[in-house]
Amino acid sequence: MKPRNPYSSINRRGLLSTLAVLPAFATILTESALAETPGGVLPSWNDGPVKQAIVDFVRATTDQASPKFVPPDERVAEFDQDGTLWVEHPIYTQVIFCLDRVGLVVKERPELKDREPFNTVLSGDREAMAKLSMRDVFEIVLATQSGMTVEQFRADVKQWLAAAKHPRWKRPYTELVYQPMLEVLSYLRANGYKTFIATGGSESFVREYSERVYGIPPEQVAGTAQPVKYGYDKDQRPILVAEPKLILNNLEAGKIENFWLLYGRRPYAAFGNSSSDDQQMLEYVKAGSGARLSGLVLHDDAAREYAYGPAQGLPDTKVGTLSQEMYDMAKKQDWAIISMKNDWKRIFAFE
Amino acid sequence: MKPRNPYSSINRRGLLSTLAVLPAFATILTESALAETPGGVLPSWNDGPVKQAIVDFVRATTDQASPKFVPPDERVAEFDQDGTLWVEHPIYTQVIFCLDRVGLVVKERPELKDREPFNTVLSGDREAMAKLSMRDVFEIVLATQSGMTVEQFRADVKQWLAAAKHPRWKRPYTELVYQPMLEVLSYLRANGYKTFIATGGSESFVREYSERVYGIPPEQVAGTAQPVKYGYDKDQRPILVAEPKLILNNLEAGKIENFWLLYGRRPYAAFGNSSSDDQQMLEYVKAGSGARLSGLVLHDDAAREYAYGPAQGLPDTKVGTLSQEMYDMAKKQDWAIISMKNDWKRIFAFE
Repeated sequence: MKPRNPYSSINRRGLLSTLAVLPAFATILTESALAETPGGVLPSWNDGPVKQAIVDFVRATTDQASPKFVPPDERVAEFDQDGTLWVEHPIYTQVIFCLDRVGLVVKERPELKDREPFNTVLSGDREAMAKLSMRDVFEIVLATQSGMTVEQFRADVKQWLAAAKHPRWKRPYTELVYQPMLEVLSYLRANGYKTFIATGGSESFVREYSERVYGIPPEQVAGTAQPVKYGYDKDQRPILVAEPKLILNNLEAGKIENFWLLYGRRPYAAFGNSSSDDQQMLEYVKAGSGARLSGLVLHDDAAREYAYGPAQGLPDTKVGTLSQEMYDMAKKQDWAIISMKNDWKRIFAFE
Repeated sequence: MKPRNPYSSINRRGLLSTLAVLPAFATILTESALAETPGGVLPSWNDGPVKQAIVDFVRATTDQASPKFVPPDERVAEFDQDGTLWVEHPIYTQVIFCLDRVGLVVKERPELKDREPFNTVLSGDREAMAKLSMRDVFEIVLATQSGMTVEQFRADVKQWLAAAKHPRWKRPYTELVYQPMLEVLSYLRANGYKTFIATGGSESFVREYSERVYGIPPEQVAGTAQPVKYGYDKDQRPILVAEPKLILNNLEAGKIENFWLLYGRRPYAAFGNSSSDDQQMLEYVKAGSGARLSGLVLHDDAAREYAYGPAQGLPDTKVGTLSQEMYDMAKKQDWAIISMKNDWKRIFAFE
């Protein structure tokens, strides 16, 4: 196994290294090829002003002859996750993960058993659970995502994702991603854009599947975050343990503030759907110099997905709410307003 | 310029996209080629146990037949900057940048002119400035890196870097990078590793040159950080402005805590030099499962660079101090202890 002279294996390693980097290049080629398929780019999108706005934006920022050309190292595109890249109804996936962990937490901390909101969750009473406040939900998230080492948490998320299924489609949550948005991610990357997730949820949760599901590596995922604390376990080995509080909060303007904090760039394109955490991000991106694309996903397709949004005269389900103010801003500032019903030929890859 | 049918230019754009990604692939090829030059890998390193430890680590983690093989998406390597990738003497580059900005800040806030530590800096008295405490330095950093928009700050850093020169070598600071460490970065990347900077300095400063100087893009730079605040300028355009306080502090254990916060992975390799912010990072990396490499750079070459470090019987210059505790830990835990004098054939590319 171990050659006596460490340099004797260099050529073999050279070959291995080249192979190791090839998948990345293969992905790029595939994405370029995709952008040139006979059906054209964005095959799951219906032709119309929204698809055209996306194509126009890419042309304006990547054609060297364009006055709005953007150098490759500044090509940054940012995507909200819940309700923009995948289904957020009837409740955010990560919240279900946390609700499923309440039993585990109570086993280690029995004093929580008789306390709200933990006893409501343990009761299994769906109607009572639906009435939990955002503050209750935060308390559950912080309690169920702290106390263990960060590496144990990674393993727990992976295990849960492999088993959990969406109640409506009976499929893993990681399959409930919007095919048209996967095509936008690929199309942008094929044109030299780096794609980032900026989620109101916990980045530590999303990072466990972002590369596999979206082609977005963990270092390009920003989200709400709990601080981790350095310490030592009983065997005096150094560990990092998440604490039950927030250090980065991606709600409201926090999402774009923290995006800058983590990456130091104003995106040229951003996509979102909710007033709770996407409004300032989309406003800031659109206000930049040159060509900028802010995309707003409307959930107006009850048959194929869900229909909600008081600004469009649809029910306010408290999950992914689009306010009238944000909807008006989108129209006034010429965001690309994406109707799932009218702009998307299909919603999921498995359809 | 703008074709009537947006789809007519797709093939041309396809070609442009392919060209846009080629530089990235070219870099990879160059790095692979470098690893196979006749002189072998790491040509600026003398043969010896340290060079061999680096080569052994790469082989153990990238050879599929190795029991310590690491899948490509977990190959993460982390580098301190000041004193590890580039010169930190006689004073950290970013601090010089901030000192140079004091005049600018005082012009906008004249009340600071007669206050410590600003009046000491304005006096130009080098001896008095050398006695400024760490607390004074922090106050100067926060005052000179806040109040402007984040995009104005980017422009200011770029402008300063283009003009400023190191007093000893009379060259831009961005040329004072250690050639042997650039080779480690390239060698690791050629073997599928992603390379990250984790600096005790401000990430917003380092991100303006990290890609050009180290091949490390801004999203792979973690550092001490001030929060940015969303707001509107006098024309009601949305802006982000840095605030004069800290949200992420990369000193001591903060560096590895924040590394996890930003990237969610335990590195397989890390390099550092100073007790102020590298000790816990190197300890944590080395304590991981499988093959792990923690490298400690010793500044023991007064002729070609600088010699400092009380643990080695050299002067304690208060910049990049290596404590006895950290030095003992390095030996006990089998870190790769890098002597600039003995392990490096040359220090800079321009030599």
